[in-house]
Amino acid sequence: MDYNQLALEKHAELKGKIGLEVKSSLATREDLSWAYTPGVAEPCRRIAENKEDVWKYTARGNWVAVVSDGSAVLGLGDIGPEAALPVMEGKAALFKEFGGVDAFPLVLDTQDVDEIVAIVKAMAPSFGGINLEDISAPRCFEIEKRLTEELDIPVFHDDQHGTAVVTLAAVLNALKVVGKKIEDVTVAMSGAGAAGIACAKILIDQGVGNVIMADSRGILSSDRDNLNDAKKAMLAVTNRNDLSGSLTDAMRGVDVFIGVSAPGVVNTEMVQSMNEGAVVIAMANPVPEIMPDEAKAGGAVVVATGRSDFANQVNNVLAFPGIFRGALDVRAKAITSEMKLAAAKALADSVEVPTAENIMPDVLDKRVSERVAEAVREVA
Amino acid sequence: MDYNQLALEKHAELKGKIGLEVKSSLATREDLSWAYTPGVAEPCRRIAENKEDVWKYTARGNWVAVVSDGSAVLGLGDIGPEAALPVMEGKAALFKEFGGVDAFPLVLDTQDVDEIVAIVKAMAPSFGGINLEDISAPRCFEIEKRLTEELDIPVFHDDQHGTAVVTLAAVLNALKVVGKKIEDVTVAMSGAGAAGIACAKILIDQGVGNVIMADSRGILSSDRDNLNDAKKAMLAVTNRNDLSGSLTDAMRGVDVFIGVSAPGVVNTEMVQSMNEGAVVIAMANPVPEIMPDEAKAGGAVVVATGRSDFANQVNNVLAFPGIFRGALDVRAKAITSEMKLAAAKALADSVEVPTAENIMPDVLDKRVSERVAEAVREVA
Repeated sequence: MDYNQLALEKHAELKGKIGLEVKSSLATREDLSWAYTPGVAEPCRRIAENKEDVWKYTARGNWVAVVSDGSAVLGLGDIGPEAALPVMEGKAALFKEFGGVDAFPLVLDTQDVDEIVAIVKAMAPSFGGINLEDISAPRCFEIEKRLTEELDIPVFHDDQHGTAVVTLAAVLNALKVVGKKIEDVTVAMSGAGAAGIACAKILIDQGVGNVIMADSRGILSSDRDNLNDAKKAMLAVTNRNDLSGSLTDAMRGVDVFIGVSAPGVVNTEMVQSMNEGAVVIAMANPVPEIMPDEAKAGGAVVVATGRSDFANQVNNVLAFPGIFRGALDVRAKAITSEMKLAAAKALADSVEVPTAENIMPDVLDKRVSERVAEAVREVA
Repeated sequence: MDYNQLALEKHAELKGKIGLEVKSSLATREDLSWAYTPGVAEPCRRIAENKEDVWKYTARGNWVAVVSDGSAVLGLGDIGPEAALPVMEGKAALFKEFGGVDAFPLVLDTQDVDEIVAIVKAMAPSFGGINLEDISAPRCFEIEKRLTEELDIPVFHDDQHGTAVVTLAAVLNALKVVGKKIEDVTVAMSGAGAAGIACAKILIDQGVGNVIMADSRGILSSDRDNLNDAKKAMLAVTNRNDLSGSLTDAMRGVDVFIGVSAPGVVNTEMVQSMNEGAVVIAMANPVPEIMPDEAKAGGAVVVATGRSDFANQVNNVLAFPGIFRGALDVRAKAITSEMKLAAAKALADSVEVPTAENIMPDVLDKRVSERVAEAVREVA
């Protein structure tokens, strides 16, 4: 199937993927009288008296903004706000389909951190949560940090935290398959951008033995003099033995490989150098760091990718709709580390008996989001 | 019927009035593959190559932002963004129901003109048009002017231009009833805010004989030393005989009264002082400048208000959905004076035989928006 051609045809035929749903018919004079003038003035008055009533009388509590500046879209890079719109519409549609969350794609014609923060803060009264999307590192870190501090609604950068949650779920179930405990495990990671850093952090929060991160220049180690602040901060909590060298060096003798980087950067020999019971989670999209057959040829026991045409698809859609569903339901003010860990565990536990070919729930199983939401509500 | 209580109940029951509509089911792996990864990358690439393709492959061309800072909401005043949200949701719902336009309510937590302009400009790539709503004068004038200059999508302040279009339609049909020509007519207007100024301008564009505007301090005349820039500009094109005095003085001997001001500022005697065949269009909401029975007691032949419980309801919902429908359909870069005049004429012509009790089309008749849209498309 040529998905490119199908995508063009469907997008053009539908004129985009999303529209407005009006929850109640407006066909009679009475309908207009409560939904608009004169009746609408009364909920306005109530909210003016008590701002909390906005959650009671409006749809705010179920709307999430999907905000992007188009600076780091899929594997396409800095393509700008207009070209990012199909992705953000898709994200909004997935929010609704899988989480019952109403989401609106807001693509911004600025890549200035201060401006983006100011814009999102100003429009926050329309939304119950903010999902940041496809904003390049390290700008995404500052934007998320400042918005989290300054807003009292959840702010979630899905490229970081959604990826981290589904990756942790994959690791948890893969380790069940190979019979290892997370505290005994060393993970080598290719990619130290937004997703890589978030994956490393959630693994550390979960108590992983060690993480060795590598970017395109090699392992993050103390002899590197070209690390940005975000990578320096990671150096302090990763690479316990201060190993230096290339990704090849990083992978030697480790238990788990996680790729959130670039196509084809791992080969069969590198997998062969891993510990027995190797787990390979190669999520570069659409072409992973190593193809599943090559990873298996290198002795990997469990192989996962981001793709739907191989076993073990690790896809954010398993996480973000349920995480926001849960957070909105309890009107959480932030999405905490505990909520993310609970979401990952719920995802992992959705697979009753993990096997080498089945560590992840089916992305089409809409019950999974509800399990994630329930876990998030419980710890919130 | 207690509309206030009904409005509270319905708003709370529905949790607001709007949600997201996903245009196509996302239930299969194939659905996800064209709507999200990997297929969605292809429309992104096309738009990155040719920005115009955003209109082809996304929903942008049918989405309008309903933007408010909550500074001048209905008759409630400066109640802030949260309390404005029920009105903006209502507006969005009416856009969809009456014009097939997908509209999103964006309430902003700032009343700074520069910030509002910057925010709307930055998020414009998500939208095919901008509807400004309930922003206080004179800030609304500058915001609209700057956005119109700097954006290449239609920007429309409905409180000004929607009101002006429906008011002109009312005047055109009322004059048919009383047998006068617009070029022979003098109009007295109570209210020189955003709506009043726009009404005066569209009457002048239509060739009205004379307009005499009054604000709460009296007639806009050359002896006034307390006029803001917007009112000064109106002074240059209104009040040909430089009459000064009160609203009572303004109404003496005129043919048409238009009220976009405050409840009860007109009495029966003031209507008695008008010309024969007097037309009274009293749109303060929910309590008009003069109640219909009092106006008729003063000799008014045609009386219109903004209310649904009297004859001749002059309501913006007759105009804005059709105006945007037409403008979006032809991808107009602005909503011009010609488009507004055409919309008003189409509205007036929707009433086949205007009578004293029937100068306006039924607000529930959804064919009216289509006639307005067709007129706008023709002149665009």
